[in-house]
Amino acid sequence: MAHIELGVDEAEFPGITGPMRFRPETAKPLNELAEVLLRGPHSLTPGERELIAAYVSGRNECEFCCASHSAFAAAQLDEGMAVVDRVRADVDTAPVSAKLRALLHIAGAVQQDGRKVTPALVEAARAEGATDVEIHDTVLIAAAFCMYNRYVDGLGTLAAADPASYQESARRIVEFGYRV
Amino acid sequence: MAHIELGVDEAEFPGITGPMRFRPETAKPLNELAEVLLRGPHSLTPGERELIAAYVSGRNECEFCCASHSAFAAAQLDEGMAVVDRVRADVDTAPVSAKLRALLHIAGAVQQDGRKVTPALVEAARAEGATDVEIHDTVLIAAAFCMYNRYVDGLGTLAAADPASYQESARRIVEFGYRV
Repeated sequence: MAHIELGVDEAEFPGITGPMRFRPETAKPLNELAEVLLRGPHSLTPGERELIAAYVSGRNECEFCCASHSAFAAAQLDEGMAVVDRVRADVDTAPVSAKLRALLHIAGAVQQDGRKVTPALVEAARAEGATDVEIHDTVLIAAAFCMYNRYVDGLGTLAAADPASYQESARRIVEFGYRV
Repeated sequence: MAHIELGVDEAEFPGITGPMRFRPETAKPLNELAEVLLRGPHSLTPGERELIAAYVSGRNECEFCCASHSAFAAAQLDEGMAVVDRVRADVDTAPVSAKLRALLHIAGAVQQDGRKVTPALVEAARAEGATDVEIHDTVLIAAAFCMYNRYVDGLGTLAAADPASYQESARRIVEFGYRV
Protein backbone atom coordinates (compact mmCIF):
# COMPACT_ATOMS: atom_id res chain seq x y z
CA MET A 1 0.00 0.00 0.00
CA ALA A 2 1.25 3.47 -0.81
CA HIS A 3 2.46 5.80 1.97
CA ILE A 4 -0.46 8.18 1.41
CA GLU A 5 -4.15 7.69 0.61
CA LEU A 6 -4.18 8.12 -3.16
CA GLY A 7 -7.95 7.90 -3.50
CA VAL A 8 -7.78 5.16 -6.14
CA ASP A 9 -7.82 1.36 -6.26
CA GLU A 10 -4.06 0.79 -6.20
CA ALA A 11 -4.39 -2.53 -8.05
CA GLU A 12 -6.06 -0.68 -10.89
CA PHE A 13 -3.67 2.31 -10.79
CA PRO A 14 -0.16 0.93 -10.11
CA GLY A 15 3.10 2.90 -9.98
CA ILE A 16 2.98 6.51 -11.11
CA THR A 17 -0.66 6.35 -12.24
CA GLY A 18 -2.05 6.59 -8.68
CA PRO A 19 -0.04 9.72 -7.67
CA MET A 20 -0.91 11.29 -11.02
CA ARG A 21 -4.62 10.88 -10.28
CA PHE A 22 -4.05 12.16 -6.73
CA ARG A 23 -2.34 15.36 -7.88
CA PRO A 24 -3.34 16.34 -11.45
CA GLU A 25 -1.65 19.77 -11.04
CA THR A 26 1.78 18.10 -10.99
CA ALA A 27 0.78 15.28 -13.35
CA LYS A 28 0.32 17.80 -16.17
CA PRO A 29 3.94 19.05 -16.43
CA LEU A 30 5.26 15.55 -15.60
CA ASN A 31 3.36 14.10 -18.56
CA GLU A 32 4.29 17.01 -20.84
CA LEU A 33 7.96 16.50 -20.03
CA ALA A 34 7.71 12.78 -20.85
CA GLU A 35 5.90 13.56 -24.10
CA VAL A 36 8.52 16.05 -25.31
CA LEU A 37 11.49 13.92 -24.23
CA LEU A 38 10.27 10.50 -25.33
CA ARG A 39 7.87 11.18 -28.20
CA GLY A 40 8.51 14.69 -29.57
CA PRO A 41 10.15 15.27 -32.98
CA HIS A 42 13.71 13.95 -32.71
CA SER A 43 16.66 12.34 -34.47
CA LEU A 44 16.52 9.50 -31.88
CA THR A 45 13.48 7.26 -32.35
CA PRO A 46 10.89 6.92 -29.56
CA GLY A 47 12.12 3.33 -29.10
CA GLU A 48 15.72 4.49 -28.57
CA ARG A 49 14.63 7.15 -26.10
CA GLU A 50 12.40 4.70 -24.19
CA LEU A 51 15.41 2.37 -24.06
CA ILE A 52 17.41 5.07 -22.27
CA ALA A 53 14.49 5.51 -19.84
CA ALA A 54 14.25 1.76 -19.21
CA TYR A 55 18.01 1.48 -18.72
CA VAL A 56 18.12 4.27 -16.11
CA SER A 57 15.00 2.93 -14.33
CA GLY A 58 16.61 -0.50 -14.15
CA ARG A 59 19.76 0.96 -12.60
CA ASN A 60 17.57 2.75 -10.05
CA GLU A 61 15.82 -0.59 -9.44
CA CYS A 62 12.40 1.00 -9.89
CA GLU A 63 10.30 -2.03 -10.79
CA PHE A 64 7.22 -0.21 -12.14
CA CYS A 65 9.14 2.31 -14.29
CA CYS A 66 11.61 -0.26 -15.57
CA ALA A 67 8.87 -2.72 -16.58
CA SER A 68 6.77 0.06 -18.12
CA HIS A 69 9.49 1.71 -20.18
CA SER A 70 11.02 -1.65 -21.15
CA ALA A 71 7.61 -2.55 -22.62
CA PHE A 72 7.32 0.88 -24.30
CA ALA A 73 10.81 0.48 -25.79
CA ALA A 74 10.18 -3.11 -26.92
CA ALA A 75 6.93 -2.07 -28.61
CA GLN A 76 8.81 0.50 -30.70
CA LEU A 77 12.07 -1.28 -31.53
CA ASP A 78 12.39 -3.84 -34.33
CA GLU A 79 14.33 -6.19 -32.04
CA GLY A 80 11.66 -5.96 -29.30
CA MET A 81 12.32 -7.04 -25.73
CA ALA A 82 15.43 -9.02 -26.70
CA VAL A 83 17.48 -5.86 -27.20
CA VAL A 84 16.03 -4.21 -24.07
CA ASP A 85 17.12 -7.21 -22.00
CA ARG A 86 20.59 -7.16 -23.58
CA VAL A 87 21.04 -3.44 -22.86
CA ARG A 88 19.89 -3.84 -19.29
CA ALA A 89 22.26 -6.79 -18.80
CA ASP A 90 25.35 -5.26 -20.43
CA VAL A 91 25.46 -2.07 -22.48
CA ASP A 92 28.93 -2.87 -23.83
CA THR A 93 27.90 -6.08 -25.63
CA ALA A 94 24.27 -5.18 -26.47
CA PRO A 95 23.36 -5.07 -30.19
CA VAL A 96 22.79 -1.31 -30.45
CA SER A 97 24.48 1.32 -32.61
CA ALA A 98 27.81 2.73 -31.42
CA LYS A 99 26.12 6.11 -31.00
CA LEU A 100 23.33 4.76 -28.81
CA ARG A 101 25.86 2.81 -26.74
CA ALA A 102 27.84 6.01 -26.13
CA LEU A 103 24.64 7.86 -25.15
CA LEU A 104 23.72 5.02 -22.76
CA HIS A 105 27.11 5.45 -21.10
CA ILE A 106 26.29 9.13 -20.55
CA ALA A 107 22.86 8.17 -19.16
CA GLY A 108 24.49 5.70 -16.78
CA ALA A 109 26.80 8.43 -15.49
CA VAL A 110 23.88 10.83 -14.94
CA GLN A 111 22.00 8.13 -13.03
CA GLN A 112 24.83 8.08 -10.48
CA ASP A 113 25.55 11.82 -10.32
CA GLY A 114 25.55 14.59 -12.92
CA ARG A 115 29.19 15.30 -12.17
CA LYS A 116 30.11 11.80 -13.43
CA VAL A 117 29.53 12.98 -17.01
CA THR A 118 33.09 13.58 -18.20
CA PRO A 119 34.33 15.40 -21.31
CA ALA A 120 35.62 11.98 -22.46
CA LEU A 121 32.11 10.44 -22.33
CA VAL A 122 30.72 13.38 -24.29
CA GLU A 123 33.56 13.27 -26.84
CA ALA A 124 33.01 9.53 -27.32
CA ALA A 125 29.34 10.16 -28.15
CA ARG A 126 30.24 13.01 -30.47
CA ALA A 127 32.80 10.80 -32.25
CA GLU A 128 29.95 8.37 -33.03
CA GLY A 129 27.90 11.19 -34.53
CA ALA A 130 25.81 12.30 -31.54
CA THR A 131 24.51 15.87 -31.87
CA ASP A 132 24.26 18.47 -29.12
CA VAL A 133 20.49 17.97 -28.92
CA GLU A 134 20.94 14.19 -28.61
CA ILE A 135 23.49 14.65 -25.82
CA HIS A 136 21.28 17.24 -24.10
CA ASP A 137 18.20 15.05 -24.27
CA THR A 138 20.07 11.95 -23.11
CA VAL A 139 21.23 13.85 -20.02
CA LEU A 140 17.71 15.16 -19.39
CA ILE A 141 15.97 11.79 -20.00
CA ALA A 142 18.36 10.14 -17.52
CA ALA A 143 17.89 12.98 -15.02
CA ALA A 144 14.11 12.91 -15.43
CA PHE A 145 13.96 9.18 -14.71
CA CYS A 146 15.97 9.77 -11.55
CA MET A 147 12.95 11.92 -10.64
CA TYR A 148 10.14 9.62 -11.86
CA ASN A 149 11.79 6.60 -10.20
CA ARG A 150 12.13 8.39 -6.85
CA TYR A 151 8.56 9.69 -7.12
CA VAL A 152 7.14 6.20 -7.68
CA ASP A 153 9.25 4.49 -5.01
CA GLY A 154 9.29 7.40 -2.53
CA LEU A 155 5.52 7.17 -2.25
CA GLY A 156 5.69 3.40 -1.83
CA THR A 157 3.42 2.65 -4.79
CA LEU A 158 2.89 -0.89 -6.05
CA ALA A 159 4.15 -2.38 -9.31
CA ALA A 160 1.50 -3.92 -11.56
CA ALA A 161 0.20 -7.27 -10.29
CA ASP A 162 -0.27 -8.53 -13.86
CA PRO A 163 2.86 -8.15 -16.08
CA ALA A 164 0.62 -8.17 -19.18
CA SER A 165 -0.67 -4.76 -18.13
CA TYR A 166 2.64 -3.17 -19.20
CA GLN A 167 2.04 -4.32 -22.78
CA GLU A 168 -1.46 -2.89 -22.58
CA SER A 169 0.01 0.45 -21.40
CA ALA A 170 2.54 0.29 -24.23
CA ARG A 171 -0.26 0.05 -26.80
CA ARG A 172 -1.91 3.12 -25.24
CA ILE A 173 1.32 5.15 -25.09
CA VAL A 174 2.26 4.31 -28.70
CA GLU A 175 -1.20 5.31 -29.90
CA PHE A 176 -2.05 8.29 -27.68
CA GLY A 177 1.19 9.40 -25.98
CA TYR A 178 1.72 10.69 -22.45
CA ARG A 179 -0.56 13.69 -22.42
CA VAL A 180 -3.70 12.87 -20.44
CA MET B 1 32.45 25.48 -20.32
CA ALA B 2 29.40 23.30 -20.77
CA HIS B 3 29.66 19.92 -22.55
CA ILE B 4 27.54 21.17 -25.47
CA GLU B 5 27.35 24.46 -27.37
CA LEU B 6 24.42 26.17 -25.64
CA GLY B 7 24.35 29.16 -27.96
CA VAL B 8 24.50 31.67 -25.11
CA ASP B 9 27.14 33.59 -23.19
CA GLU B 10 27.60 31.12 -20.32
CA ALA B 11 28.72 33.85 -17.93
CA GLU B 12 25.41 35.61 -18.54
CA PHE B 13 23.33 32.40 -18.43
CA PRO B 14 24.79 30.20 -15.66
CA GLY B 15 23.45 26.86 -14.44
CA ILE B 16 20.07 25.75 -15.75
CA THR B 17 19.40 29.01 -17.61
CA GLY B 18 21.69 28.12 -20.53
CA PRO B 19 20.15 24.66 -21.24
CA MET B 20 16.69 26.21 -20.89
CA ARG B 21 17.51 28.71 -23.63
CA PHE B 22 19.04 25.93 -25.73
CA ARG B 23 15.94 23.72 -25.55
CA PRO B 24 12.75 25.75 -24.88
CA GLU B 25 10.57 22.69 -25.63
CA THR B 26 11.79 20.99 -22.45
CA ALA B 27 12.19 24.25 -20.51
CA LYS B 28 8.42 24.78 -20.62
CA PRO B 29 7.35 21.70 -18.60
CA LEU B 30 10.44 22.01 -16.36
CA ASN B 31 9.44 25.56 -15.42
CA GLU B 32 5.77 24.64 -15.03
CA LEU B 33 6.68 21.82 -12.66
CA ALA B 34 8.80 24.19 -10.55
CA GLU B 35 5.99 26.76 -10.51
CA VAL B 36 3.34 24.27 -9.29
CA LEU B 37 5.63 22.62 -6.75
CA LEU B 38 7.33 25.70 -5.31
CA ARG B 39 4.87 28.53 -5.82
CA GLY B 40 1.38 27.07 -6.42
CA PRO B 41 -1.41 27.32 -3.80
CA HIS B 42 -0.27 25.25 -0.82
CA SER B 43 -0.33 24.76 2.95
CA LEU B 44 3.49 24.94 2.93
CA THR B 45 4.79 28.44 2.19
CA PRO B 46 6.98 29.07 -0.89
CA GLY B 47 9.87 29.69 1.53
CA GLU B 48 9.41 26.28 3.17
CA ARG B 49 9.21 24.54 -0.22
CA GLU B 50 12.30 26.37 -1.51
CA LEU B 51 14.08 25.26 1.67
CA ILE B 52 13.36 21.61 0.77
CA ALA B 53 14.72 22.29 -2.75
CA ALA B 54 17.87 23.96 -1.36
CA TYR B 55 18.41 21.14 1.14
CA VAL B 56 18.22 18.43 -1.55
CA SER B 57 20.40 20.42 -3.96
CA GLY B 58 23.00 20.82 -1.20
CA ARG B 59 23.02 17.07 -0.56
CA ASN B 60 23.49 16.52 -4.30
CA GLU B 61 26.32 19.08 -4.16
CA CYS B 62 24.88 21.01 -7.11
CA GLU B 63 26.44 24.42 -6.58
CA PHE B 64 24.19 26.43 -8.91
CA CYS B 65 20.89 24.91 -7.73
CA CYS B 66 21.85 25.01 -4.07
CA ALA B 67 22.92 28.67 -4.21
CA SER B 68 19.84 29.62 -6.25
CA HIS B 69 17.23 27.91 -4.12
CA SER B 70 18.98 28.89 -0.88
CA ALA B 71 18.62 32.51 -2.03
CA PHE B 72 14.98 31.92 -3.07
CA ALA B 73 14.22 30.33 0.33
CA ALA B 74 16.02 33.07 2.26
CA ALA B 75 14.12 35.78 0.38
CA GLN B 76 10.80 34.25 1.47
CA LEU B 77 11.53 33.14 5.06
CA ASP B 78 11.42 35.56 8.03
CA GLU B 79 14.70 34.14 9.35
CA GLY B 80 16.45 34.59 5.98
CA MET B 81 19.68 32.83 5.09
CA ALA B 82 20.43 32.04 8.77
CA VAL B 83 17.80 29.28 8.85
CA VAL B 84 18.80 27.98 5.40
CA ASP B 85 22.39 27.59 6.58
CA ARG B 86 21.26 25.86 9.79
CA VAL B 87 19.07 23.39 7.86
CA ARG B 88 21.84 22.62 5.40
CA ALA B 89 24.31 22.10 8.28
CA ASP B 90 22.07 19.93 10.50
CA VAL B 91 18.35 19.36 10.04
CA ASP B 92 17.97 17.93 13.54
CA THR B 93 19.03 21.09 15.36
CA ALA B 94 17.83 23.71 12.84
CA PRO B 95 15.16 26.18 14.08
CA VAL B 96 12.28 24.90 11.94
CA SER B 97 8.89 23.49 12.90
CA ALA B 98 8.69 19.82 13.91
CA LYS B 99 6.55 19.21 10.82
CA LEU B 100 9.04 20.78 8.42
CA ARG B 101 11.88 18.86 10.08
CA ALA B 102 10.00 15.58 9.53
CA LEU B 103 9.34 16.52 5.89
CA LEU B 104 13.04 17.35 5.42
CA HIS B 105 13.88 13.87 6.70
CA ILE B 106 11.62 12.41 4.01
CA ALA B 107 13.28 14.65 1.38
CA GLY B 108 16.71 13.47 2.54
CA ALA B 109 15.64 9.85 2.09
CA VAL B 110 14.28 10.52 -1.42
CA GLN B 111 17.56 12.23 -2.37
CA GLN B 112 19.37 8.95 -1.70
CA ASP B 113 16.78 6.54 -3.16
CA GLY B 114 12.98 6.51 -3.19
CA ARG B 115 12.98 3.19 -1.40
CA LYS B 116 14.63 4.82 1.62
CA VAL B 117 11.31 6.47 2.50
CA THR B 118 10.04 4.21 5.29
CA PRO B 119 6.57 4.00 6.84
CA ALA B 120 8.23 5.28 10.05
CA LEU B 121 9.43 8.48 8.33
CA VAL B 122 5.95 9.05 6.90
CA GLU B 123 4.26 8.33 10.24
CA ALA B 124 6.62 10.76 11.98
CA ALA B 125 5.59 13.51 9.56
CA ARG B 126 1.93 12.67 9.96
CA ALA B 127 2.29 12.77 13.75
CA GLU B 128 3.51 16.38 13.42
CA GLY B 129 0.45 17.27 11.35
CA ALA B 130 1.71 16.74 7.78
CA THR B 131 -1.08 16.12 5.27
CA ASP B 132 -1.06 13.67 2.38
CA VAL B 133 -0.54 16.53 -0.08
CA GLU B 134 2.39 17.87 1.96
CA ILE B 135 3.99 14.41 2.04
CA HIS B 136 3.32 13.90 -1.68
CA ASP B 137 4.78 17.27 -2.63
CA THR B 138 7.82 16.83 -0.39
CA VAL B 139 8.60 13.53 -2.15
CA LEU B 140 8.10 15.12 -5.57
CA ILE B 141 10.10 18.29 -4.77
CA ALA B 142 13.00 16.13 -3.58
CA ALA B 143 12.69 13.85 -6.63
CA ALA B 144 12.45 16.81 -8.99
CA PHE B 145 15.64 18.35 -7.61
CA CYS B 146 17.41 15.04 -8.15
CA MET B 147 16.49 15.73 -11.79
CA TYR B 148 17.30 19.47 -11.95
CA ASN B 149 20.63 18.92 -10.15
CA ARG B 150 21.67 16.12 -12.57
CA TYR B 151 20.54 18.21 -15.55
CA VAL B 152 22.68 21.19 -14.49
CA ASP B 153 25.75 19.14 -13.55
CA GLY B 154 25.37 16.49 -16.27
CA LEU B 155 25.73 19.18 -18.92
CA GLY B 156 28.74 20.66 -17.15
CA THR B 157 27.23 24.13 -16.80
CA LEU B 158 28.90 26.85 -14.75
CA ALA B 159 27.72 28.26 -11.43
CA ALA B 160 27.29 32.05 -11.32
CA ALA B 161 30.57 33.96 -11.20
CA ASP B 162 29.01 36.69 -9.03
CA PRO B 163 27.19 35.36 -5.91
CA ALA B 164 25.06 38.52 -5.85
CA SER B 165 23.33 37.30 -8.99
CA TYR B 166 21.44 34.67 -6.93
CA GLN B 167 19.78 37.44 -4.91
CA GLU B 168 18.90 39.18 -8.16
CA SER B 169 17.31 35.94 -9.43
CA ALA B 170 15.46 35.61 -6.12
CA ARG B 171 13.85 39.02 -6.60
CA ARG B 172 12.74 37.97 -10.09
CA ILE B 173 11.36 34.58 -8.96
CA VAL B 174 9.48 36.11 -6.02
CA GLU B 175 7.91 38.73 -8.28
CA PHE B 176 7.31 36.79 -11.51
CA GLY B 177 7.67 33.08 -10.70
CA TYR B 178 9.21 30.33 -12.81
CA ARG B 179 7.06 30.51 -15.91
CA VAL B 180 9.01 32.20 -18.68
